[in-house]
Amino acid sequence: MISFASDYIQGAHPKVLQRLIETNMEQLTGYGSDPYCNSAKEKIRKACNCPDADVYFMVGGTQTNMVVLDSILLPHEGVISPVTGHINGHESGAVESTGHKILQLPAVLGKISAESVEEFVATFYADENYEHMVSPGAVYISHPTEYGTLYTKAELEALRKVCDKYNMKLFMDGARLGYGLAGDNTDVTLETICENCDVFYIGGTKVGALCGEAVVFPKGDMPKHYLTISKRHGALLAKGRLLGIQFDALFTDDLYFEIGKHAMDMVHSMKQVFIDNGYEFFIDSPTNQLFVILDNDVMEKLKEQVIFSFWEKYDANHTVVRFATSWGTTAEEIEKLDEVLKAL
Amino acid sequence: MISFASDYIQGAHPKVLQRLIETNMEQLTGYGSDPYCNSAKEKIRKACNCPDADVYFMVGGTQTNMVVLDSILLPHEGVISPVTGHINGHESGAVESTGHKILQLPAVLGKISAESVEEFVATFYADENYEHMVSPGAVYISHPTEYGTLYTKAELEALRKVCDKYNMKLFMDGARLGYGLAGDNTDVTLETICENCDVFYIGGTKVGALCGEAVVFPKGDMPKHYLTISKRHGALLAKGRLLGIQFDALFTDDLYFEIGKHAMDMVHSMKQVFIDNGYEFFIDSPTNQLFVILDNDVMEKLKEQVIFSFWEKYDANHTVVRFATSWGTTAEEIEKLDEVLKAL
Amino acid sequence: MISFASDYIQGAHPKVLQRLIETNMEQLTGYGSDPYCNSAKEKIRKACNCPDADVYFMVGGTQTNMVVLDSILLPHEGVISPVTGHINGHESGAVESTGHKILQLPAVLGKISAESVEEFVATFYADENYEHMVSPGAVYISHPTEYGTLYTKAELEALRKVCDKYNMKLFMDGARLGYGLAGDNTDVTLETICENCDVFYIGGTKVGALCGEAVVFPKGDMPKHYLTISKRHGALLAKGRLLGIQFDALFTDDLYFEIGKHAMDMVHSMKQVFIDNGYEFFIDSPTNQLFVILDNDVMEKLKEQVIFSFWEKYDANHTVVRFATSWGTTAEEIEKLDEVLKAL
Amino acid sequence: MISFASDYIQGAHPKVLQRLIETNMEQLTGYGSDPYCNSAKEKIRKACNCPDADVYFMVGGTQTNMVVLDSILLPHEGVISPVTGHINGHESGAVESTGHKILQLPAVLGKISAESVEEFVATFYADENYEHMVSPGAVYISHPTEYGTLYTKAELEALRKVCDKYNMKLFMDGARLGYGLAGDNTDVTLETICENCDVFYIGGTKVGALCGEAVVFPKGDMPKHYLTISKRHGALLAKGRLLGIQFDALFTDDLYFEIGKHAMDMVHSMKQVFIDNGYEFFIDSPTNQLFVILDNDVMEKLKEQVIFSFWEKYDANHTVVRFATSWGTTAEEIEKLDEVLKAL
Repeated sequence: MISFASDYIQGAHPKVLQRLIETNMEQLTGYGSDPYCNSAKEKIRKACNCPDADVYFMVGGTQTNMVVLDSILLPHEGVISPVTGHINGHESGAVESTGHKILQLPAVLGKISAESVEEFVATFYADENYEHMVSPGAVYISHPTEYGTLYTKAELEALRKVCDKYNMKLFMDGARLGYGLAGDNTDVTLETICENCDVFYIGGTKVGALCGEAVVFPKGDMPKHYLTISKRHGALLAKGRLLGIQFDALFTDDLYFEIGKHAMDMVHSMKQVFIDNGYEFFIDSPTNQLFVILDNDVMEKLKEQVIFSFWEKYDANHTVVRFATSWGTTAEEIEKLDEVLKAL
Repeated sequence: MISFASDYIQGAHPKVLQRLIETNMEQLTGYGSDPYCNSAKEKIRKACNCPDADVYFMVGGTQTNMVVLDSILLPHEGVISPVTGHINGHESGAVESTGHKILQLPAVLGKISAESVEEFVATFYADENYEHMVSPGAVYISHPTEYGTLYTKAELEALRKVCDKYNMKLFMDGARLGYGLAGDNTDVTLETICENCDVFYIGGTKVGALCGEAVVFPKGDMPKHYLTISKRHGALLAKGRLLGIQFDALFTDDLYFEIGKHAMDMVHSMKQVFIDNGYEFFIDSPTNQLFVILDNDVMEKLKEQVIFSFWEKYDANHTVVRFATSWGTTAEEIEKLDEVLKAL
Repeated sequence: MISFASDYIQGAHPKVLQRLIETNMEQLTGYGSDPYCNSAKEKIRKACNCPDADVYFMVGGTQTNMVVLDSILLPHEGVISPVTGHINGHESGAVESTGHKILQLPAVLGKISAESVEEFVATFYADENYEHMVSPGAVYISHPTEYGTLYTKAELEALRKVCDKYNMKLFMDGARLGYGLAGDNTDVTLETICENCDVFYIGGTKVGALCGEAVVFPKGDMPKHYLTISKRHGALLAKGRLLGIQFDALFTDDLYFEIGKHAMDMVHSMKQVFIDNGYEFFIDSPTNQLFVILDNDVMEKLKEQVIFSFWEKYDANHTVVRFATSWGTTAEEIEKLDEVLKAL
Repeated sequence: MISFASDYIQGAHPKVLQRLIETNMEQLTGYGSDPYCNSAKEKIRKACNCPDADVYFMVGGTQTNMVVLDSILLPHEGVISPVTGHINGHESGAVESTGHKILQLPAVLGKISAESVEEFVATFYADENYEHMVSPGAVYISHPTEYGTLYTKAELEALRKVCDKYNMKLFMDGARLGYGLAGDNTDVTLETICENCDVFYIGGTKVGALCGEAVVFPKGDMPKHYLTISKRHGALLAKGRLLGIQFDALFTDDLYFEIGKHAMDMVHSMKQVFIDNGYEFFIDSPTNQLFVILDNDVMEKLKEQVIFSFWEKYDANHTVVRFATSWGTTAEEIEKLDEVLKAL
């Protein structure tokens, strides 16, 4: 069986694992105060070209979303999110568990536009009863989105503008950021993100780490007691080294970017394989996920040899399924997929 | 510099790391559904001699305490804890962040007695206004405690009895459980714990893992939606394998118990070294932590060559400091300590 | 100036006030334990023909919604609500402040159908990742809705059925229940509501009381520690008599139903006045609220002599505004409105 | 039966009730925006000699404590409180329900000293692990305390000083403030309180109102979105007039102060009665509560004719009980008590 089920089906990228092995017996201080954490932060600042940024390592995506949002919102504020946003649909109510409402906006392929945010917030403040409602304190976007799509630089700048106008923070969920930065035809770099977001995170779990996400506050305005806020939510790791060492490896010799590039090379090959075999796509995704429309019979047969994810029903006879590549995907696996498809 | 600062200053026990290396490229399913998690759970059930137990892996101690307590308490219930309990003093209010009050009892060397719990709860229910107060829904203890002390089997049985009498859950924080099970003169085994606690956890972070704690519900009555509850608090790891593989290694060939024994061997040597050099102890701790009374001048000189932890002031001229051993402590380090002390 | 701004613009119905005056100097016990609270509960049970019901008095609507929902939901559960539901839009995130997500369904004139609930919940459980989502533990409806519309008996029965099927509680917000029970062509009585809802409340604030809502659990299964849960949210009144005496008056000699009937008589007159003067309605509301479409110029002139509420923009030149009647509306006020409209 | 059970056993002071009657049919706007609320606020500002103060009306004491504290604390901050503080023992965990830990200090007759606060906070910041603990963001005191005792001006000034030193807010719970201002030998006035507290409330429920507490931010720095924060906790009354009219009456012609004086006159008479009959006191309380030591046999007999409150056991044969006076206590009731005591 070969698996394209997701981008978190394997352990750590070998270079990341290697660093964990090399440093394993070193005696280090805890809670993120060790030299590897500091080195990793410095490398991330350089990669972002953002020398004043505050960087903080967390363990997983849902945890990061809830802690960051709880740290930047006032208790009575809510966060605007695409209705399809991960925080809204797939985090078991973690944001609400911290007392904040998610203000849902309709999404197009996972994205929201500055126009729709503007319209929502303008309507909000035009309502004379707005003090009885939940005020929007931040905007949440993911990049890539849950549909593998990407914002353009212009779209981010427009979102920045509306956030400035209404005094809201812009927060980007970068769980798959590595694949987004290497995405097709993107003009969004780490620098673009730093220029436009108040806070974002660089996903590790899905991009080569065993676990870990690096939160970045580009302006250096991380809430003063972020460590305490983080621990209050059970998010502070005693052996902070586990995160620091991994991100230090990911940001050494551009490994993080190479991982993205490799996954994109693989997804391009895979796409060609599907095209060659006559398949059609549900979304023309520019990142490491392919959303393919399968005849239900074909799907069942394919399942016997290949692992992929159910996405949604297309029609009575067809289903949309997702294939993901990652740092661990090999050319051999793509060839194998081709053989399997040809044999169907 | 040699360090006895804590039991989480190094990475993973070599055998644990080895299993991570061996399994790294395997393609596994996420969120704890992989075969290593299942295998580890089965091994833990066997080690506990508790075939019906539910086992669930979490990332860290504070997270485990808050999620377990939130899962077993009704929203309006509180948890009884020694005033010195980790949840009460050193978790940034994580339990309160989930809305639960901590009902503090005076502690003796980190422990509370069944008698003091009984008195507290009896007084509570004798108060005609108790519905205006926070009802005790659970009792939190740690074993070893924050002072390295241990409960006896008889003490646990007495706590079980009072919990039964007042319909409270008994929860044991086992962040250092491995060192407790190997502690001096203890009659408390995993089986004892299973017989007396409603839920406890087997600490990994401080006992050989990079991270991870194994929650055990001996009676198999883990709250039905524990995975959702856990994710709601940001505590569900995408690569659940990271925890499963480590605990699988820790519970293979009694590694978890060997680690405990090794740390106890080391602390025995260390204790002898301190005795030989004429030092006195603040507490006669039966586990892997030594609380030594140092003359302040000696302390300053010692700091130049050895890392240890400040505990508390003893008097104007003396300080209590803590030395901890772990799976990673070596006989050479103890010898080195002896030399340093002799040279002072 | 005459005001139809809302149904809470005046103090208490004179008969309610009279009872407060008569009982003012009596020395009573606190927190709802006085004989007036007991008497009022008994009268409500009789009015509901529901001898086993648990009844509990609270101060206001938002408070009631949040405390009831927090008491019947498990911490990780959410509540299904029409997108236009009061809890979703106009309670400042009170439900979310207790950690629960609101699962929004599209609404038609304030109502949701059993079919839409069924589809939502069936889709939820069909999703293999549903444990990563917020499970629906209850359904919230209001009757009358925020648009003054009413459910039919058949609609409530259908909602009951889907709630039974998926083990969800059905909760009815009856902030304006008195006006709903007297609504046009309704076949929904207090008995119907008791038969179909797990919990509902009988609104007092908008139906003749100074403040107060009576929560009813028809099956007598009020959560055991409801008083504590209520106090934990700051919702327990020391002088519980204030609520008991008022509800005792409201349920003496059918006053609550008379208030509803009076407001309906008044709204019927008012409707005729608008029809006679050539106005059109936005919604054909069967209760005490009229949603009238006004030419913007007319609206501005009307404002000078009559107080009403802005509802929403209709088009560039027209606005929807709301006129409400209540126990306090008089025939003279309706006549005055007619004169004003004629003079425009 | 005569009752001295508490100071909230009767309805409203007749002058307060009278104003409710007079204004009952007036058509007013909701949510505290009516002219009576404004007038009451202005009168309170004058009584405080604090023209810039922000004043906000809430319904009850527990609600006020939780909403005020939630509004002035950062989410990760806790509040220092005497262990006997009402928020710590008798509010069902309301403060914790908003996620804040209560940091308990030992109390002497309900009071804490600036010295003990200073020592606690200094120790906190001296702990190198304080970021893993709950930082003190405010100090809660009650005046009168739960034991009927009072702070002196000098004590409040000392608390102010330590709060300034450590950047903490000082919050005074004035549930019984009226009786405190009229207390024996007190040098604390409303002005003193305004000069030293960041926020406090003037209790209405126990001092002549049906319900209601007036929160005062003397410096005019009420958190910007206090109305929203309040509604988010279910604390915003639709008919805000109910609170405004009552406080307007209480602060007309010094009624609030007269109520306090009357209750003190009554308690002085009552005290003399107990002395004359040979009883002893547990506390020499300077306000409207008497804590009397009763022989258990006497207590049982007294219960047949007089209602009072159990306070605590004194010894095997004696009990401490509480007698409270209020605005409603009459000279006849005190005489009756004297007769009953004489007859025992």
